[in-house]
Amino acid sequence: MFEAAELGHEISKEDYDAREPILREALLDAQLDLLEQKRQSVVVILGGVDAGGKGDVLNLLHEWLDPRHVTTYALAAPLGEDHGRPDFYRFWRALPPAGKISIFVGSWYTNPILDRVFGRIPTSDLDRHMRRAVLFERMLSSENVVVLKFWLHLSKKSKKKRLDELSKSDKTSWRVTDADWENHKRYDKFRKVSERALRESSTAEAPWIVVEASNPRYRDLTIATTLEQSIRARLPEASPTHANHAPALPAPIDDRRILSSLDLDKTIEPAVYSDKLPTLQGKLNLLFREPGMKKRSVVAVFEGMDAAGKGGAIRRVTHALDARQYRVVPIAAPTDEEKARPYLWRFWRNLPGHGSMTIYDRSWYGRVLVERIEGFCDTNDWMRAFGEINEFEEQLAESGVIIVKFWLQTSKEEQLARFEAREKTGFKRHKIGPEDWRNREKWEAYEHAASEMIERTSTEFSPWTIIEANDKKHARIKILETLVETIDDAF
Amino acid sequence: MFEAAELGHEISKEDYDAREPILREALLDAQLDLLEQKRQSVVVILGGVDAGGKGDVLNLLHEWLDPRHVTTYALAAPLGEDHGRPDFYRFWRALPPAGKISIFVGSWYTNPILDRVFGRIPTSDLDRHMRRAVLFERMLSSENVVVLKFWLHLSKKSKKKRLDELSKSDKTSWRVTDADWENHKRYDKFRKVSERALRESSTAEAPWIVVEASNPRYRDLTIATTLEQSIRARLPEASPTHANHAPALPAPIDDRRILSSLDLDKTIEPAVYSDKLPTLQGKLNLLFREPGMKKRSVVAVFEGMDAAGKGGAIRRVTHALDARQYRVVPIAAPTDEEKARPYLWRFWRNLPGHGSMTIYDRSWYGRVLVERIEGFCDTNDWMRAFGEINEFEEQLAESGVIIVKFWLQTSKEEQLARFEAREKTGFKRHKIGPEDWRNREKWEAYEHAASEMIERTSTEFSPWTIIEANDKKHARIKILETLVETIDDAF
Repeated sequence: MFEAAELGHEISKEDYDAREPILREALLDAQLDLLEQKRQSVVVILGGVDAGGKGDVLNLLHEWLDPRHVTTYALAAPLGEDHGRPDFYRFWRALPPAGKISIFVGSWYTNPILDRVFGRIPTSDLDRHMRRAVLFERMLSSENVVVLKFWLHLSKKSKKKRLDELSKSDKTSWRVTDADWENHKRYDKFRKVSERALRESSTAEAPWIVVEASNPRYRDLTIATTLEQSIRARLPEASPTHANHAPALPAPIDDRRILSSLDLDKTIEPAVYSDKLPTLQGKLNLLFREPGMKKRSVVAVFEGMDAAGKGGAIRRVTHALDARQYRVVPIAAPTDEEKARPYLWRFWRNLPGHGSMTIYDRSWYGRVLVERIEGFCDTNDWMRAFGEINEFEEQLAESGVIIVKFWLQTSKEEQLARFEAREKTGFKRHKIGPEDWRNREKWEAYEHAASEMIERTSTEFSPWTIIEANDKKHARIKILETLVETIDDAF
Repeated sequence: MFEAAELGHEISKEDYDAREPILREALLDAQLDLLEQKRQSVVVILGGVDAGGKGDVLNLLHEWLDPRHVTTYALAAPLGEDHGRPDFYRFWRALPPAGKISIFVGSWYTNPILDRVFGRIPTSDLDRHMRRAVLFERMLSSENVVVLKFWLHLSKKSKKKRLDELSKSDKTSWRVTDADWENHKRYDKFRKVSERALRESSTAEAPWIVVEASNPRYRDLTIATTLEQSIRARLPEASPTHANHAPALPAPIDDRRILSSLDLDKTIEPAVYSDKLPTLQGKLNLLFREPGMKKRSVVAVFEGMDAAGKGGAIRRVTHALDARQYRVVPIAAPTDEEKARPYLWRFWRNLPGHGSMTIYDRSWYGRVLVERIEGFCDTNDWMRAFGEINEFEEQLAESGVIIVKFWLQTSKEEQLARFEAREKTGFKRHKIGPEDWRNREKWEAYEHAASEMIERTSTEFSPWTIIEANDKKHARIKILETLVETIDDAF
């Protein structure tokens, strides 16, 4: 992989001086078009050997591009609020909005490579990290994020030479740290591990571009040219539509689905309810005071048909808790900061820290429910969402998040009764509008989509719990019981 | 202060049942109008004695209001990313956007009161915290945030009774913690300290409303009614304009100002520049590796006339640092999440954590420069900004932030030369547009506003450094020297 980057590529000063102004103008033009179209964003990963000149390249890009629309991140290690959240939290937080560019000098590659070089993880773990990177970048690419990965390479000899040169002068010796020399002793190991990492994570959507770094002019022109061409190549197209590429998912021939086979009329005696409710709330409260909770967090997802009783159920849960232990995130229209990024971004930004719970009142499943049914996204978009969501939840589970997902289902008749009751009661009238009536007409489509969603996204680390919700009291008790059991089991 | 809340206020069940539906509908109406007008937001502080029923009130508000537009925060103690940032960081982050409501059950009052009760701070510190709260709420109020502060009060006797009742039943005993009993021993001290805190922080904009909490029906109706009336009272008005209330600031009679009395032609020899630049960059780099830096952070502000060389100077600074040590925040048009909150919010959200630097390329001073000159805000708004900015920077300084502020000044002739050069060079053309030419026509107004800004916001904890910038090299060296000296002095 690195042989082609040891050929001694060079660009003369004259050649460079002739190309520079033309390239700068083209690059800037591409950036301004990117900004104006506001459809794509760009992620640049700058990896490679120490002393390969990452700092110089960074500086060049900030000078050649309009720096107001470029942000650089060095996120190798998690910091502050990153602790207690999944490893990819910090990368999600740093994704650029449409039109803008994020440069990562510490990325999702940094730690896996270092950990493998220093023997802290086996090769199988390195490969696992690379597969995760591939999935992440595939999602980014589908979500209109251009991913460009540069690897600055130096042969062992030229790297040693460069370190020596920098160390010699008083004015540049501060650029070489003890860690640089320590790493250099492991050059061969670094090379071997990086080669594997790059090979495993080079894909059609986001190939690695290895750049020989011994001649700064060659290095800079290569990177700037690639950046300009890559932005330009993605610009003219409209947002790619795959509407017809995805095969239709077959509906069950006998029309039997999970959600149409439920006994929705399960009830609970009011007296039993009054007894069980505070008991379960007490249990839930005590679970949040357990020492084990200090290293865990809870994500609770509430989905269901309109008027199925999500709000009332959520209040029965939060009443058991101290306000500092939970946050309810109602999913309404995204803000412009959210709209400009991949659809999962707004959920990542609200993930709970250790010891607390985020309750999502509707969630990322909107992608495979309302967006699917209303055609707000392409078929391919909601079809790939099943896999993206499972991957997202797996990352949550791996980082210690306890995930509980509820689907609240009423009968169509019960929904009608509740709609009518809402229209009659002054302080409930805001809960019912023309949109609810329109959705009701699509009852079967929602039931079909929800059934498929439950089937495709019930995993061992994040199963769905279906709540028969014609009786609100039954629903609330089953939800609290499930929460208490799941959290208890997790300890 | 608490006598009126020990009168034994009571509401009968019949009376409550008669009022409830009317009040709920009125409250919800007020909230929906708030949401629709999107001009004001509401901050509710819920303080008071343990067992006063904060949890119940919270639950009630979430049930009576549309909970999708209400967020509850319990921010007594700093968490995760709050560490290493000023104390008010977490409260700023939690401010609601226009149209929405934030409820604080742990607020800027919680820790000062606890610290005083437990003897960790003297009364003078409590008073200082209260003055800070008053300034904060005055700013919020001017920025269209309605601040409502409720204090739930119970006499010593009724508080004891309530704790006993809760403890007796299996179903509610979990609601009483050991800390509640510990605190109860200090009831008299709590009462005395709270009384002082409330008195010192009751203002016309945001008075404390003490609510007797022994009768839940009385408590709930009082709070809901007050909330409804307060939202309603602020709604019909347009955003208050004080344009004519503020006295004009006198210009110096002889027209001599700080910025018109500079020697702008200071230069530096190119050879000296080439020598000093890397030396200073090395020094800056080493300062960021000092152990002392682990508990400090740096905020650098770059302001100046158009084309004064801010971008080039910033790059000379960042080139000395590792990408994980700094962040450049260019101030362009605010996003909708930013526009919906007080103007300082977008700067708070970008404050650096320990060990790192945020460089603001233009800053909060836009309020007293472009917004003042272009009339984007009322006279009263930019006039109060001087005090608000000094208060903001004092909070930064107190929390260990090293603040360095640069004003880059060129002559009017030099600016013209640079504008013309930009128009001639392809890759610089994006840096010049009609707006720059328009601003140039207002040169004197900007010089006057900037002179006044420097005078009013140069403080011992955050002085301005004026940079004579006709010679770019001179400017860059003076900036690096100032940075190095200021950081070095701070250790």
